[in-house]
Amino acid sequence: MSSIYGNKLKLSIFGQSHAPAIGMVLDGFPAGYKIDFDAMHGFMERRAPGRNAQSTSRREADEPEFLSGVNDGYTCGAPIASVIRNTNTRSGDYNGLSVTPRPSHADYTAKIRYGEHNDFSGGGHFSGRLTAPLCLAGALAKGLLEKNGITVNAMLCEIGGVSSSEEDMVRAIDEARARGDSVGGIVRCVAEGVPAGIGDPMFDGIENRIARIVFGIPAVRGIEFGAGFDAARMTGSTHNDPFTVENGKVKTKTNNHGGIIGGITTGMPVDFRVAFKPTPSIAVEQDTVDLEKMENTKLAIRGRHDPCIVLRALPCVEAACAIALLDALLESDCKLITE
Amino acid sequence: MSSIYGNKLKLSIFGQSHAPAIGMVLDGFPAGYKIDFDAMHGFMERRAPGRNAQSTSRREADEPEFLSGVNDGYTCGAPIASVIRNTNTRSGDYNGLSVTPRPSHADYTAKIRYGEHNDFSGGGHFSGRLTAPLCLAGALAKGLLEKNGITVNAMLCEIGGVSSSEEDMVRAIDEARARGDSVGGIVRCVAEGVPAGIGDPMFDGIENRIARIVFGIPAVRGIEFGAGFDAARMTGSTHNDPFTVENGKVKTKTNNHGGIIGGITTGMPVDFRVAFKPTPSIAVEQDTVDLEKMENTKLAIRGRHDPCIVLRALPCVEAACAIALLDALLESDCKLITE
Amino acid sequence: MSSIYGNKLKLSIFGQSHAPAIGMVLDGFPAGYKIDFDAMHGFMERRAPGRNAQSTSRREADEPEFLSGVNDGYTCGAPIASVIRNTNTRSGDYNGLSVTPRPSHADYTAKIRYGEHNDFSGGGHFSGRLTAPLCLAGALAKGLLEKNGITVNAMLCEIGGVSSSEEDMVRAIDEARARGDSVGGIVRCVAEGVPAGIGDPMFDGIENRIARIVFGIPAVRGIEFGAGFDAARMTGSTHNDPFTVENGKVKTKTNNHGGIIGGITTGMPVDFRVAFKPTPSIAVEQDTVDLEKMENTKLAIRGRHDPCIVLRALPCVEAACAIALLDALLESDCKLITE
Amino acid sequence: MSSIYGNKLKLSIFGQSHAPAIGMVLDGFPAGYKIDFDAMHGFMERRAPGRNAQSTSRREADEPEFLSGVNDGYTCGAPIASVIRNTNTRSGDYNGLSVTPRPSHADYTAKIRYGEHNDFSGGGHFSGRLTAPLCLAGALAKGLLEKNGITVNAMLCEIGGVSSSEEDMVRAIDEARARGDSVGGIVRCVAEGVPAGIGDPMFDGIENRIARIVFGIPAVRGIEFGAGFDAARMTGSTHNDPFTVENGKVKTKTNNHGGIIGGITTGMPVDFRVAFKPTPSIAVEQDTVDLEKMENTKLAIRGRHDPCIVLRALPCVEAACAIALLDALLESDCKLITE
Repeated sequence: MSSIYGNKLKLSIFGQSHAPAIGMVLDGFPAGYKIDFDAMHGFMERRAPGRNAQSTSRREADEPEFLSGVNDGYTCGAPIASVIRNTNTRSGDYNGLSVTPRPSHADYTAKIRYGEHNDFSGGGHFSGRLTAPLCLAGALAKGLLEKNGITVNAMLCEIGGVSSSEEDMVRAIDEARARGDSVGGIVRCVAEGVPAGIGDPMFDGIENRIARIVFGIPAVRGIEFGAGFDAARMTGSTHNDPFTVENGKVKTKTNNHGGIIGGITTGMPVDFRVAFKPTPSIAVEQDTVDLEKMENTKLAIRGRHDPCIVLRALPCVEAACAIALLDALLESDCKLITE
Repeated sequence: MSSIYGNKLKLSIFGQSHAPAIGMVLDGFPAGYKIDFDAMHGFMERRAPGRNAQSTSRREADEPEFLSGVNDGYTCGAPIASVIRNTNTRSGDYNGLSVTPRPSHADYTAKIRYGEHNDFSGGGHFSGRLTAPLCLAGALAKGLLEKNGITVNAMLCEIGGVSSSEEDMVRAIDEARARGDSVGGIVRCVAEGVPAGIGDPMFDGIENRIARIVFGIPAVRGIEFGAGFDAARMTGSTHNDPFTVENGKVKTKTNNHGGIIGGITTGMPVDFRVAFKPTPSIAVEQDTVDLEKMENTKLAIRGRHDPCIVLRALPCVEAACAIALLDALLESDCKLITE
Repeated sequence: MSSIYGNKLKLSIFGQSHAPAIGMVLDGFPAGYKIDFDAMHGFMERRAPGRNAQSTSRREADEPEFLSGVNDGYTCGAPIASVIRNTNTRSGDYNGLSVTPRPSHADYTAKIRYGEHNDFSGGGHFSGRLTAPLCLAGALAKGLLEKNGITVNAMLCEIGGVSSSEEDMVRAIDEARARGDSVGGIVRCVAEGVPAGIGDPMFDGIENRIARIVFGIPAVRGIEFGAGFDAARMTGSTHNDPFTVENGKVKTKTNNHGGIIGGITTGMPVDFRVAFKPTPSIAVEQDTVDLEKMENTKLAIRGRHDPCIVLRALPCVEAACAIALLDALLESDCKLITE
Repeated sequence: MSSIYGNKLKLSIFGQSHAPAIGMVLDGFPAGYKIDFDAMHGFMERRAPGRNAQSTSRREADEPEFLSGVNDGYTCGAPIASVIRNTNTRSGDYNGLSVTPRPSHADYTAKIRYGEHNDFSGGGHFSGRLTAPLCLAGALAKGLLEKNGITVNAMLCEIGGVSSSEEDMVRAIDEARARGDSVGGIVRCVAEGVPAGIGDPMFDGIENRIARIVFGIPAVRGIEFGAGFDAARMTGSTHNDPFTVENGKVKTKTNNHGGIIGGITTGMPVDFRVAFKPTPSIAVEQDTVDLEKMENTKLAIRGRHDPCIVLRALPCVEAACAIALLDALLESDCKLITE
């Protein structure tokens, strides 16, 4: 499938960091949904760089243009295509990366996979910038879910190993920047209001669907649902979530299962956590290789880089979750309302 | 996609725990591979229950019958269908589970999703027994990968929080059984010999593919690649894997990236870890609900159940990994040999 | 996709003519449908050989065994697997066909595609016998459609160029057999009761879906919808179907559009015609090649062969149509009833 | 799949006739192919309206802008996105078509399917204009096939039932225009140089693939391969194509099989014919319904419309064929060259 995701709601993402544009096509989105452009901008703003002191100073306009799929402000049932022009680019920053690949960047694997014609500039198709169209699609999916009583919220758990306070997290980022280094972090995402009975065994369960799209976000290294890796250290008697009847509805007293059993939602919040590695672009000198001479060499990456992309990753995780859930809902027998 | 996985190599798994049979169809497997039935049996034996003191005493014959796709012992290019008869079943054990669902089992979600006609007996299509056809397909995939110099090995990391020694792990299981309880664990899987350049951005990267199939194994709650969740606590300078030239080949000095960057293999070992929850079927009494009376009630699960399925999960994880890698390889430009 | 068809209802067909069995897995079929085994047998009987004087004398038991997906006679939501054992086989008939391929049979292309390990016996995976599992799946799909007021009926249009009377058609077949030759024919299929609004532009329209599965039936050489190839010889004013209101419902006065406009159903009968080539297995001596010596040679095919498969193709076309329509319906917003 | 086609080469088409733009994303196109922009323009020019006296006078600039996937004139492996702006539009022409649908147009089915928010203007997503991005993708596919020795050529067989001479065909169109009427026709397409062994049984054979994409071209009513519907009137002894060895290569003396047996190419030319209905937009008054009042009414369509789209359909059929073949080739073991 490559850069296409989904069964009934199909998202196709295109673009390279320094190509004329990036964008997406969203096929299968229901007709009759009125796009809330303000909400969409607000959502995309959360992902945009240069919005806080902790992010790269590179600013992107990120103003999406809708080319199709919208009629008088409403989705019309035809595929929704939307593009974001690339303007503020400095491709000179990236010269030579196809010869001396940046450690833990996709320069090396892209070259192996696509050869010399790969677009290395700015990370090309592998750039974090490609999460902008993901968020664009996610904003639409989130909006439609909200009309159906489903909310998706991501929150910071840890930055650079720090979980005590947001202040401490910010300090961890600032310290990393001062050292020319970077830090990673952990994001938790919770979807509430998802009806019970959504998802399909065995390879299209909600975990399978969310995991597949979340690993499409650069820098993701792990995902866990409910109690996750901690579940491996619990006993059945402490991990099992007892059922109970509350106000005539079936619930579980705890949510170690993260809202999903057997790939299918229980009606409890869908709850998962995502691990992000530290940004690989760091200022400190690193060991790499010269692929032409086939010998070891050193590399110091210049340019403006985020010391931590986790803050900006929050809307990306929400977008991924919303798209996965909407696709599963559209495949289910649930009747969605659009207005 | 439901119970079907893969792009070019497509695996379709069917069966319920107490249906006449379980089995699989493997479409797209190359012609000309001589099946090593001994190796296949050995592999499946590792998954089978009742093979060690720590597993359930229920024994399964698990002798697969190949219905198609094989000619004189060689794969012939046609879809490979193989079935395993269900013999040693005791459906009486499971009466009433559609009314009083077992906590953290799929009884409840299956009922919501499929209604009263769902086959609740023995967990139906959600049973861990369905990993037998997964292993069957995995045995074929592993065998073909091995002919191409690629090995896939899973190993125990933790059981019930214990990682010190295998003896201690076994004791943790025995203690859980004695208490009528269960424990989970963590499995690591490493694939060596995978050529660089395999996998497709952005939603068909190797992580996306492996995660999607691994979450098809019951009880999996999390997956992490390379440094995984620990990466979130590292700095870029410690997490980045420096490239180096070794004997004329490009390698990385460390493997925090788990053999995958940008969804594409680097040639370093593909390395990931999977978290398994404790078996939900425990003997101790649990709170649940009576779905007919819509009131709280108690449940004590009888019958033979594994206090820990992690030992038996090792070949399942290998199988999932091998199938995902073979599918990605078949989609790549790599020329595979079959003999 | 190979031997797998469908988006939400996924059919996987397996088997070779002389393998232990042929069969199918049907994933995504709704739970709660009571299988009418008598109707199913009756439907499959129409496809079975040896049922009339015009067909091959080879008899197949064709008794399907349901391995999974059925619980107390009802579909349970899990994938439905069903197999038909191959019993009455005479593989000796087919010796040497990998060296001297039969004209217009898949012997040659199968060898190119799968090599020497291809199962040539009885046509292997390319045999018309593989339409038995297609009909098996089709019987289930037809049954569920009927519960929802949708009927699918195929009828003979032409045999060997004869369309005057059934008697004349039978004579055309008998004459062909007497000469050791064969004839083809044309089948028309009509689905009534399909609601308006089913199907998806542009590549998942009803024509695209039906055409894709119908060309999976061996010997099909063409398909046309509504006025079909004749439409090419009409003018817009005669071909266009005027809308009209009848009893408060929108209809068209004529049905040159075959019930589909823009890939989407209009509520008028879905109407298409399928062309079948004459059976390639004929007794008269033919020119072929010896692939080992790479020289021209002669071939006389022995064994029992249908002089015309069109009679037996009727249920196959119905099955293909029913599966395609049910898949499209399951993807639509229509709520299907199962009981 | 809707407006997305393909397994390994995935084409996503978007746009409406009067939306800001139409376009396509082509995912999976190999890296390193130098786009021949002149050839591409020439190819698209053949589809463009207003290029000859027989076509609509509406002119489209149809200058595609490549947004991604191209680097220094070469494909770079990332998804290729290209858009064509809609400029010369007159949406006033189409007022009211959602209330009084045009016979044999998708106005009615689009309204049923997508409701009042469907974009009716100019036919919306169902417009023949959407074949421009199909041709854009087709130009790239054709170019890459040509580098590998494969040519795809479509030719006129019939227009308005006339096959005698091109002059007579043109006269048939002119006469239809003079009457405010329209005519259809038949297009033949031949692909030469396709290697033997391409295509996959049973639902991804070359016929299945080509049929599925060809029915994505508006106005197509039928498709036949090789002898097609005529095959139904032949005997096995006249229809079967005898194999022969010619210059050390296996060929068939005739090509009634149209280059495909069992869904797999034989190395002979892939040869098929496509039937196009007469353009539904005609000036003569037609019967239709008023969907608001639910009563019969009359409709006279104004505006500029082609009396025959078959001339312009030639490159569309070539594009569809080239995309289907390239996808099948990329899935095969054939090694394609890009330079």
